Amino acid sequence: MSQALYRDVIDACNRCASACDHCTAACLEEDNLAMMATCIRLNIQCAAICRLLALYLHHDSQFIAALAKLCRTVCQNCAEECAQHEHAHCQACAEACQACARACEVLPD
Amino acid sequence: MSQALYRDVIDACNRCASACDHCTAACLEEDNLAMMATCIRLNIQCAAICRLLALYLHHDSQFIAALAKLCRTVCQNCAEECAQHEHAHCQACAEACQACARACEVLPD
Amino acid sequence: MSQALYRDVIDACNRCASACDHCTAACLEEDNLAMMATCIRLNIQCAAICRLLALYLHHDSQFIAALAKLCRTVCQNCAEECAQHEHAHCQACAEACQACARACEVLPD
Amino acid sequence: MSQALYRDVIDACNRCASACDHCTAACLEEDNLAMMATCIRLNIQCAAICRLLALYLHHDSQFIAALAKLCRTVCQNCAEECAQHEHAHCQACAEACQACARACEVLPD
Repeated sequence: MSQALYRDVIDACNRCASACDHCTAACLEEDNLAMMATCIRLNIQCAAICRLLALYLHHDSQFIAALAKLCRTVCQNCAEECAQHEHAHCQACAEACQACARACEVLPD
Repeated sequence: MSQALYRDVIDACNRCASACDHCTAACLEEDNLAMMATCIRLNIQCAAICRLLALYLHHDSQFIAALAKLCRTVCQNCAEECAQHEHAHCQACAEACQACARACEVLPD
Repeated sequence: MSQALYRDVIDACNRCASACDHCTAACLEEDNLAMMATCIRLNIQCAAICRLLALYLHHDSQFIAALAKLCRTVCQNCAEECAQHEHAHCQACAEACQACARACEVLPD
Repeated sequence: MSQALYRDVIDACNRCASACDHCTAACLEEDNLAMMATCIRLNIQCAAICRLLALYLHHDSQFIAALAKLCRTVCQNCAEECAQHEHAHCQACAEACQACARACEVLPD
């Protein structure tokens, strides 16, 4: 049963995707929007690949290992960018991205 | 700040979308797949509109009220269909859909 | 057969969603990013609801009429915002949004 | 400008995603649904990764090469499965998947 095995990773993916969507929306309301372009760009990409990985986990896909490897890299990049900004939504997003990257590591190769 | 105000509804949407995706994947592995077509069809539609509503809530969109009304209807329809099947994933999905439908009701018109 | 009946609307939805995604990405590279926040916000919402409507059309959903009405409104709002900006990607996006809004009108109530 | 460079690949991704969504919906209405489970499962995965690649192409992402490699594999698997079924929607989907797999090959490593 895929959901039992993958439940923690799916939860981490969903939390990360939601944190990225929130960070995107909150960045768009910041006064220093010009400094947030890379953050928004990575948030959009990170949210989308986390949702894809969650979907593949639900379907116990044969492509999970390859996708998880890439998802982990995207999460790490997004976390590094978000961590550079003091906004609470960026700090929270960095944490969710790091947690998702760690969750991806437990998946079998 | 939209996330504080809408956090519970966003969580309900995400849980419902994940339950629907899981139910779709699990239905596709059932022996009586021919009986699950309507369930799968509604799961796919319900997962997608719940994710859209979560996105609109993150952005504090002007279209939340109209979308929440439709999302609630889709959740109710999906819950009614899932509740008719004995599979554990269908019963769990019915509960997540009902919870999301109730969460949508608290949003202002 | 839903695809034959709805093919033109699905195509308009897909073209609009792609134009919105492109406009979002291109806005994030503009020098006057601070002026593009509303445009990006609406692009994100418009792309997502157009994809949802295309999905519902593929499934010949019972919720098409209600969703198409909302999708049309979102497309019109996004078109009005994009039309105010001189960037080629904004002008192209405004046209794709207007075309999608018109396509939604042909759907039965 | 990413859209000019990647336009053909984005179009192939969008056409493939739409063909997969249509094939999923049409499979769910077939009499021999029990034989279509693998087809539906791959359609769902293929549609989602094609949309992700289109999004990454719009954003001229640093992760395009890695994602395109995986997307190509998923498209090829979906094409092989769809090609085994006589339904017109399966044959059309197989062609769209093959076209998208070929489009992915032109992207730089």
